[in-house]
Amino acid sequence: MWIQDFFLQLVVILFIARLFGEVAVRFNLPSVIGELIAGLIIGPSLFNLIHPTETIRLLAEIGIVLLLFEVGLETDIHRLMKTGSKPFIVALGGVVLPFVFGFFLSYSVFKLSLIVSLFIGSTLTATSIGITMRVLSELKKQATHEAQIVLGAAVIDDIIGIILLSILFEFANGGGVSILNVGKIILFVSAFLLIAPIAAKFIANFIQNYSKKSTIPGLLPATIVTLILFFAWLAHQVGAPPLIGGFAAGLALSKQFFLPLGPSFAVEQHFSEKVEKQMQPIVHLFTPIFFVTIGLSLNLKTIPWDSPFIWGLSLSLLMAALLGKVLSGFLLIKEKQMVRWAIGIAMIPRGEVGLIFAEIGKSSGAFNNDLYAAMIIVIAVTTILAPFMLRFFYSHRLD
Amino acid sequence: MWIQDFFLQLVVILFIARLFGEVAVRFNLPSVIGELIAGLIIGPSLFNLIHPTETIRLLAEIGIVLLLFEVGLETDIHRLMKTGSKPFIVALGGVVLPFVFGFFLSYSVFKLSLIVSLFIGSTLTATSIGITMRVLSELKKQATHEAQIVLGAAVIDDIIGIILLSILFEFANGGGVSILNVGKIILFVSAFLLIAPIAAKFIANFIQNYSKKSTIPGLLPATIVTLILFFAWLAHQVGAPPLIGGFAAGLALSKQFFLPLGPSFAVEQHFSEKVEKQMQPIVHLFTPIFFVTIGLSLNLKTIPWDSPFIWGLSLSLLMAALLGKVLSGFLLIKEKQMVRWAIGIAMIPRGEVGLIFAEIGKSSGAFNNDLYAAMIIVIAVTTILAPFMLRFFYSHRLD
Repeated sequence: MWIQDFFLQLVVILFIARLFGEVAVRFNLPSVIGELIAGLIIGPSLFNLIHPTETIRLLAEIGIVLLLFEVGLETDIHRLMKTGSKPFIVALGGVVLPFVFGFFLSYSVFKLSLIVSLFIGSTLTATSIGITMRVLSELKKQATHEAQIVLGAAVIDDIIGIILLSILFEFANGGGVSILNVGKIILFVSAFLLIAPIAAKFIANFIQNYSKKSTIPGLLPATIVTLILFFAWLAHQVGAPPLIGGFAAGLALSKQFFLPLGPSFAVEQHFSEKVEKQMQPIVHLFTPIFFVTIGLSLNLKTIPWDSPFIWGLSLSLLMAALLGKVLSGFLLIKEKQMVRWAIGIAMIPRGEVGLIFAEIGKSSGAFNNDLYAAMIIVIAVTTILAPFMLRFFYSHRLD
Repeated sequence: MWIQDFFLQLVVILFIARLFGEVAVRFNLPSVIGELIAGLIIGPSLFNLIHPTETIRLLAEIGIVLLLFEVGLETDIHRLMKTGSKPFIVALGGVVLPFVFGFFLSYSVFKLSLIVSLFIGSTLTATSIGITMRVLSELKKQATHEAQIVLGAAVIDDIIGIILLSILFEFANGGGVSILNVGKIILFVSAFLLIAPIAAKFIANFIQNYSKKSTIPGLLPATIVTLILFFAWLAHQVGAPPLIGGFAAGLALSKQFFLPLGPSFAVEQHFSEKVEKQMQPIVHLFTPIFFVTIGLSLNLKTIPWDSPFIWGLSLSLLMAALLGKVLSGFLLIKEKQMVRWAIGIAMIPRGEVGLIFAEIGKSSGAFNNDLYAAMIIVIAVTTILAPFMLRFFYSHRLD
């Protein structure tokens, strides 16, 4: 790929992301919707201007990892732990309900095959933590009680999703499902989430001490990004999604991080603020690339808009997708009505995680073009609708 | 390419760049030498750990463009203009002398063919503005009189280099050299350098005004990087090296930029400082990738170290390369002796520009493996030696 083509792609993506983000805000919508729509407009769905190359996709991946780093950085681990078992309940409900609804509809109503129905059910379990947290943070709700529950639930949901995917992948490829393998994945991912923030904390402390000695400028951006990408890579090595690594690194550098080892690890607030200040421009540069790329990877043109089967299936699945998540927030935990609504809505967007499921369903042969199209409709509508609903909900407080 | 491989590559590159940068500073060497050596160590020359993929090379390109942006941002255009015709004289001398020395040695002494000798002479004309400016800025000499002359001369040298390359390229491919084409290139590039900073200034003023209204965070990093990459792309479109576009964008945003149009364009110093503060982490993240990539793209193993021809040729060419640049600083302009030394030394490193010449010489068939190896030795030694000499010179002031 020529440098000039790459530069031009980046220029178009960054510019249109900003333009549509600003326009969205004028219409009282979260900017992330503008960025998604920007991707649809310059992508294959409309003008087909940009074909995301490998490099753009890799930069987008950095974007989502950095976004989760920022989420981690702003996470108050005390408050997250105070939410107790609620994120687990919401995550489990948000996996089981959409899966059961989706599977039942596909298998019993639309008479699809077992493996296809399993894939459809699984695709509906996804939660796009990136889109949800970005919207909550734009609404300045990221520190609220409900946001903490959603954050915990979305992280757990991501982990369950990874486990589901690896099971389905084996199943679709003709292998049986080995309990040993599933157990191994669960063990590795849980161990990572316990150990990674502590390990990252050690490294962060080293960087903090070294930063007082170093005379070459630019220590923080280079070393902190190295730390983040290292833990993203590590997460992938143990079978977890890379963004979990970004989240762990963010937790380790947050002001409120604490360790059972005691006050020897007391965080210098000053350092934490310096990290935040220097990392923000980098995070803000990369994250729009991620959201535009989601829009770019949806092709609304491939959807056979005149097929009644597609419409029937996707509308029923859409209801299953919406209800499954909202009910998991609404029925399963004890909170104020408003909080339960917010949690349910925030869990709706399938975003990039749903797309990954759909892609694997397609590449493993479970989804033909029409089924894939139906899934794309469901993913697109939940992704675009949820931020809109959340914003509407918060401005009209339904309590 | 898998995400995890890419993340790991970036982690290794960023980490080892920092590590060797810090070590270099301990030995009183500029950090850029550490970064180059880091690239040699993890590259094919030694451990062969990292094969720079397209994505890494594209990130490296962003690195050099951003570095030149920073150079532009810190350039005082008044002072640059006060240097008058001196940069032109230094640049012309630094092109003509190494070219003549190199051509004479190759053609008359080593009896190489005309086209090969022309390519060798041309390769010696290059100046790596990136390495030189980074070293001067680490020595805190970037605002000195001599640095302004070097900066101007290096920019002009880059432009002459591009023109030379396009002539040679046509010549090597069997076509005659058309004066019309050469004239067109010269016209386009000069026009770009005159118009680009003014156009960038208009856009920058728009961003400045808009930044007061925007409510979404991250306006500056996203829009400024867009502006920089846009002008880098534009530079390439008119036939100039992309880094010139980064330089033009930096000039437009610098505190000291002025326009003949008068005070309506008066720069808000506050805005310029905000841009600098927010862009610095991004610049510091990307530039080490560039310098490590230079080290990665040199393969010292392919050099037949036992060939007397290679040693004879490369040592004579090295003398030509060193003398050609030092003499152009020393003989051709009226300055204090110390300033003339500094200018001559600062023009020595061939760096990435020299490598581009050598690559084109190789791919067009002019350089066989041995000749290519000899050129690589000359480029590597000038690149590694010059920062070392410059630092030694400034700490032992030879005046």
